[in-house]
Amino acid sequence: MGNERLVVIGGDAAGMSAASQARRRRGADDLEIVVVERGRWSSYSACGIPYLVSGAVDGFDALIARSPEEHRKRGIDLRMGVEAEGIDRDRREITVRDLASGRTDRIGFDHLVLAMGAVPIRPPLPGIDAPGVHGVQNLEDARVLIDYLRPDQRRAVVIGGGYIGVEMAEALIRHGLEVTVVDRSAQPMSTLDPDMGALVHEAMEGMGIDVVTETEVVAIEVVDGRASAVLTADGRYPADVVVLGLGVRPNTALARDAGLPLGASGGLSTDLRMRVTADGIWAGGDCVEVLDLVSGRRRHVALGTHANKHGRVIGTNIGGDYATFPGVVGTAVSKVCDLEIGRTGLREKDAAASGFEFVTATIESTGRAGYYPGARSMTVKMIAERITGRVLGVQIVGRDGAAKRIDTAAVALTHRMTAEDMTSLDLGYAPPFSPVWDPILVAARKAAQKVAEGR
Amino acid sequence: MGNERLVVIGGDAAGMSAASQARRRRGADDLEIVVVERGRWSSYSACGIPYLVSGAVDGFDALIARSPEEHRKRGIDLRMGVEAEGIDRDRREITVRDLASGRTDRIGFDHLVLAMGAVPIRPPLPGIDAPGVHGVQNLEDARVLIDYLRPDQRRAVVIGGGYIGVEMAEALIRHGLEVTVVDRSAQPMSTLDPDMGALVHEAMEGMGIDVVTETEVVAIEVVDGRASAVLTADGRYPADVVVLGLGVRPNTALARDAGLPLGASGGLSTDLRMRVTADGIWAGGDCVEVLDLVSGRRRHVALGTHANKHGRVIGTNIGGDYATFPGVVGTAVSKVCDLEIGRTGLREKDAAASGFEFVTATIESTGRAGYYPGARSMTVKMIAERITGRVLGVQIVGRDGAAKRIDTAAVALTHRMTAEDMTSLDLGYAPPFSPVWDPILVAARKAAQKVAEGR
Repeated sequence: MGNERLVVIGGDAAGMSAASQARRRRGADDLEIVVVERGRWSSYSACGIPYLVSGAVDGFDALIARSPEEHRKRGIDLRMGVEAEGIDRDRREITVRDLASGRTDRIGFDHLVLAMGAVPIRPPLPGIDAPGVHGVQNLEDARVLIDYLRPDQRRAVVIGGGYIGVEMAEALIRHGLEVTVVDRSAQPMSTLDPDMGALVHEAMEGMGIDVVTETEVVAIEVVDGRASAVLTADGRYPADVVVLGLGVRPNTALARDAGLPLGASGGLSTDLRMRVTADGIWAGGDCVEVLDLVSGRRRHVALGTHANKHGRVIGTNIGGDYATFPGVVGTAVSKVCDLEIGRTGLREKDAAASGFEFVTATIESTGRAGYYPGARSMTVKMIAERITGRVLGVQIVGRDGAAKRIDTAAVALTHRMTAEDMTSLDLGYAPPFSPVWDPILVAARKAAQKVAEGR
Repeated sequence: MGNERLVVIGGDAAGMSAASQARRRRGADDLEIVVVERGRWSSYSACGIPYLVSGAVDGFDALIARSPEEHRKRGIDLRMGVEAEGIDRDRREITVRDLASGRTDRIGFDHLVLAMGAVPIRPPLPGIDAPGVHGVQNLEDARVLIDYLRPDQRRAVVIGGGYIGVEMAEALIRHGLEVTVVDRSAQPMSTLDPDMGALVHEAMEGMGIDVVTETEVVAIEVVDGRASAVLTADGRYPADVVVLGLGVRPNTALARDAGLPLGASGGLSTDLRMRVTADGIWAGGDCVEVLDLVSGRRRHVALGTHANKHGRVIGTNIGGDYATFPGVVGTAVSKVCDLEIGRTGLREKDAAASGFEFVTATIESTGRAGYYPGARSMTVKMIAERITGRVLGVQIVGRDGAAKRIDTAAVALTHRMTAEDMTSLDLGYAPPFSPVWDPILVAARKAAQKVAEGR
């Protein structure tokens, strides 16, 4: 059956979106679709894991957008527990192994979608493989961690203060644990500039989360076969449970072995339509690199929202239509308890590394009219190119309504707006939602003024 | 003193912003600044009045951004209770009357800023001037209304279901009154298309607000010298208090008498720098018309956020720098209790009147990941031009986080994005803040699909 066969490696966001979009456009008699997934879960929200661990989200099923059975009902041959072991580009087939039976097989393809995702960074520390040290990349990790948590545990250490680290810190304090976050950077949330990260640091301490910065972990202490402390150059942090939040890197061993092109970031290189090669090999999600529209460089950004977009673009193209993924501006939002964090574009160090000269403007405002009940402080930092005033990056730390304000800046960056241009933006105003000058506009005014002064 | 004199008519958002910005750039020995304001309040937030009446905001002072004394301390000669009666363009002076003493005077100007604001629409209905019938345009109106409210009153009728009407309906139910909103349109919030207004209607009924549509008020019934009911063609609505929320029109009698140019909308015409004439007459705020960047037409939009921007542009230019106000896309946000409403760009009828052919796409999503606690439904409607796919308007009705999502669309409209372009926007994603496809992107996907199908 099928005039053509589409084979997808990886049954999560990018892979299943590609399969679904292709299926919508081409029926089963026209396109056979096979997806191999080595894990036992497909189409789940990895970003929801901290909230599953915290108990805010009830049950694993909640995070599963579509079960393997649902995909199969739509005519997608989704094979769980099957790992791809090789890609033979000449014979146009992949080698797979069923992890339960050990049986290997070959599957020919006309189109191949590489959606292997990312692998968590796991430094080779003594003790890192001991029980009680937990990654939180997939649902299986989450299950193991949740099973490990016991009411008599008192202390948790999170290694890494990026967004996974701070979200896991929140999850663990909600479990009643005393939480220490250890990070090698000057401040947590190093996707922000250190001055903005310092606001997150201060707020986390206010929530009772101990944040230890500029500190390198050297080993996990293991007692009675279980992790008992995190050892650093500066001291020992007792831990009944240790969580690794050190980020991820693209999972590209298979692609590298097949001689497919990898970029400097380590992710697979694709064209605008997400093609790796012109003869039917595509890639998307956490295993590719993307164009940063602000710096013009390619970088690796592991985010479910991009993976879904890539999948849609790939599936649309394989389906016979046309779609492109032009790139990212680097938007991300996260929270620690009630503190909201948004960022888009370049940090100061990124801007400098790209060769920009720039000014910075930081302002404090509120998310509602100052007189409206519940108005809380919000800090906005804007980075704008010298002379031209082009906005290069925006960072926001605050409460109620802070994080998603970054979207306004993200669209502005997409269109290379200047700070002065931004001061005229027609943003929604009413006292429950914004001061008469939205905080984004206040930051734009200050940045525009600094640009003018520097001319 | 002063080489030049700036005279401002109207001491609210546009006028005082212009004065403040000019003062920042030019000292008192270089520019004398006189502001005449006929009322007793300056620089206050009229948009806060519903929340003052509801009791959410405590006290009149909270709404006053800067008192007359504070302005005077900054070297602005702000004269309260003084009305401008005439503009003599040849002699370059205005005639003013002190409302308390009745004394008239003339003030010469080098620069004149017209910031007279708007006047509320008051149809000549029998009984409209009776006690118990309240406008809510300024702080004096608010004070009279608050003084009129008594615990033994049971019923209120709001005439007009626009944003002032729905905000006042919320304020009055918070006072424990039974509230009826009477509107001549098919649905309340006629700044939305009727299908989206219907969602507001339904939600308001769910809050216990009675909404009577397609109904013309013919008179106010007066008993014992006070308003007792609102009479319509279809029936009588008993009312212990009546609130008028019928919108405003530009206050331009003075300008018209002076032969200054008014546009078709009734507002003063200005150039990009907010100049009415090249020889030093400027205008901003609720008395001007602005360019609608989507339709290319000029229209009157009374919003404090625009008034502040106009004032900044005028003051910057008078101060010797350069600034422009390019126009609006028509963004507005409001709420009724927990229902949030956002809109930007053209409604279907505006698009048709401008000559556009278009498709519409309406989607339902949530403001957070569906599995995240507190996720509530959100409806997004997108209107896009046929063939080109250019987005012409977006409307949002929903709960938590719905209204300010409109800002993303506002920036997109500013840049004439297509629906297909918008599907690639790099918007912030994390489960507490958005589904993996933000509702704006879901609407863009559906609109793009409809555009493609219609080609």
